[in-house]
Amino acid sequence: MKYRCFCGLLIAGLLLFLPLSGQARQVVCDDSLSLWQDRPAKKAVLDFVQRVTDPNDAAYVPPQDRIVTIDMDGTLVCERPTSVGMLFAENLLREWASAPQLQGREPFEAARRDGLRQMRKKHFELFFGLSGAGFEEGVLQSKMQTMVRGERHPRYKRPYRELFYDPMLQLVHYLIQNDFVVYVVSGSDQTLVRVLCAERPELAGLPPARFIGTLVALDVDFADGKPVYYRLARELEPVNLRKGKALNILYRIGQYPILAIGNSKGDCGMLAVTHAAKYPETLRLLLNHDDAGREFAYPGPTGSDAALCREQAGADILSISMRDDFEKIFAFDSGL
Amino acid sequence: MKYRCFCGLLIAGLLLFLPLSGQARQVVCDDSLSLWQDRPAKKAVLDFVQRVTDPNDAAYVPPQDRIVTIDMDGTLVCERPTSVGMLFAENLLREWASAPQLQGREPFEAARRDGLRQMRKKHFELFFGLSGAGFEEGVLQSKMQTMVRGERHPRYKRPYRELFYDPMLQLVHYLIQNDFVVYVVSGSDQTLVRVLCAERPELAGLPPARFIGTLVALDVDFADGKPVYYRLARELEPVNLRKGKALNILYRIGQYPILAIGNSKGDCGMLAVTHAAKYPETLRLLLNHDDAGREFAYPGPTGSDAALCREQAGADILSISMRDDFEKIFAFDSGL
Repeated sequence: MKYRCFCGLLIAGLLLFLPLSGQARQVVCDDSLSLWQDRPAKKAVLDFVQRVTDPNDAAYVPPQDRIVTIDMDGTLVCERPTSVGMLFAENLLREWASAPQLQGREPFEAARRDGLRQMRKKHFELFFGLSGAGFEEGVLQSKMQTMVRGERHPRYKRPYRELFYDPMLQLVHYLIQNDFVVYVVSGSDQTLVRVLCAERPELAGLPPARFIGTLVALDVDFADGKPVYYRLARELEPVNLRKGKALNILYRIGQYPILAIGNSKGDCGMLAVTHAAKYPETLRLLLNHDDAGREFAYPGPTGSDAALCREQAGADILSISMRDDFEKIFAFDSGL
Repeated sequence: MKYRCFCGLLIAGLLLFLPLSGQARQVVCDDSLSLWQDRPAKKAVLDFVQRVTDPNDAAYVPPQDRIVTIDMDGTLVCERPTSVGMLFAENLLREWASAPQLQGREPFEAARRDGLRQMRKKHFELFFGLSGAGFEEGVLQSKMQTMVRGERHPRYKRPYRELFYDPMLQLVHYLIQNDFVVYVVSGSDQTLVRVLCAERPELAGLPPARFIGTLVALDVDFADGKPVYYRLARELEPVNLRKGKALNILYRIGQYPILAIGNSKGDCGMLAVTHAAKYPETLRLLLNHDDAGREFAYPGPTGSDAALCREQAGADILSISMRDDFEKIFAFDSGL
């Protein structure tokens, strides 16, 4: 059994008062979530993990069924003012839209006329696809890698690969250590999801199959003895948001998560399918962006979206406050 | 190091002539593929597995990259006179087509007019989807399970779940024991693939994510606190055949197989992508149905299909002869 504790105090106590006996070593200080404040969210996660990993607990879940699905943009990594995937697509579309041979041609004309955001709202199913249309998949991968390593976030002046939330990466590491099967389930272009997450050691060890994003339609050519994949100008169904996440979890994982973590209305379908897991205890978390000082302040599901989310995923969604629950947000932060 | 051997002889030799020393125990008799005749196919597989699992060999592949993709129909399980997935869809379509309210409605009318085979040829992308349209996914799963356990093959008079090829299941077991990451990649309805393969212990231990088939479009409803998935009347792109297998390997696995095993022109794209694996030695196998006596005799890729397959996947595709390489074919066979 593990005792949750304030580690510094306990270690001091051990050094001062206890002999270094076998007994003393049984008191393990669980600082697995040291970047989390000792508040309800941390306690809920630690309790949940302890219960589902304890073969003597009624909530026990065998390792192969410890599926956890985690959203990327806004849950693992900063998505404001623009998510990394959107920024990448916008950069590419801007290049395209300024090409002389595309003057007057839709949808580039629409992008120029209405702005990219408007076009994205109307044609999300085209946005990622169009931006990379005709590119070789490998070439785009390299471009993505260059971008996440080189281009700097307008506020933090850091490369995008540094904009992962440190407490969330710590949580991922903790879950993997406890034999959870971690999937990242993101609305972004799946190739970008794989490229961006490969930048962080906590995620780089996961096989590529664990990253589920929106798929861009591809064709493949075998002419030169090796397959060459290139992009068509559209996405594949289902776009990996809302119901799409619930669908892709069945298609791609075929098991229901016992733990799902998101931050927006796009994640409610993913949270909802935890209720189909065949175990008595499951956990649903929504990260709340309430820290304008250190990150950004913008609501999760509100109004009718919140009502729909509760209707789909139940009322017992636990909120994580970035302001109150996170000791620090980014690795480059100095902490509270 | 393992010595390939005719096991009975070696064991007899050991008992007669060798003391039971430490040295004697080093001579391991590799009968992992005991259902395979001692011929080139068996030797190629054993050599390949030994090399890629030996850290001192130039062909070594770390376990996480030991991806193997195996076709199902005609490679793991009998597909004649009708594949299990097709038969299931045909049974359902027949029920539909005879429903009074569908009289005169397309495409059921076309199925009645032209026959199901013709309709399937013209509209493969609709075949699985249409047959189950409107059904809850869970209901269809149960129907599939009932069918593979209960309905008997016209020739063998055995339930369809018994029609797996025993030497192929032994190969799967051997690969899993050697830390290969086994994927079944089938043109059939993915739900049927999962249901059918779950019937065999050699495959039942694999997570559902390892079964990649053609996807039927679904919708999901969260109204009653649990997700309910139901089928729409079409399939999703890409149909998991030919190029579709190459595409889904990138989408769903994100790693290229070092070993691919199929039996038809539908598998050539899957065989071809082994050439994109970043390791020096890869292996491509096609099962040849040349045993009319014990199973069925029908060619793999021939003529222009064979030429295309060689163009895509290379000339060094190794053929497995069911007649010459398999000691027995089905578990219920008495053997040669």
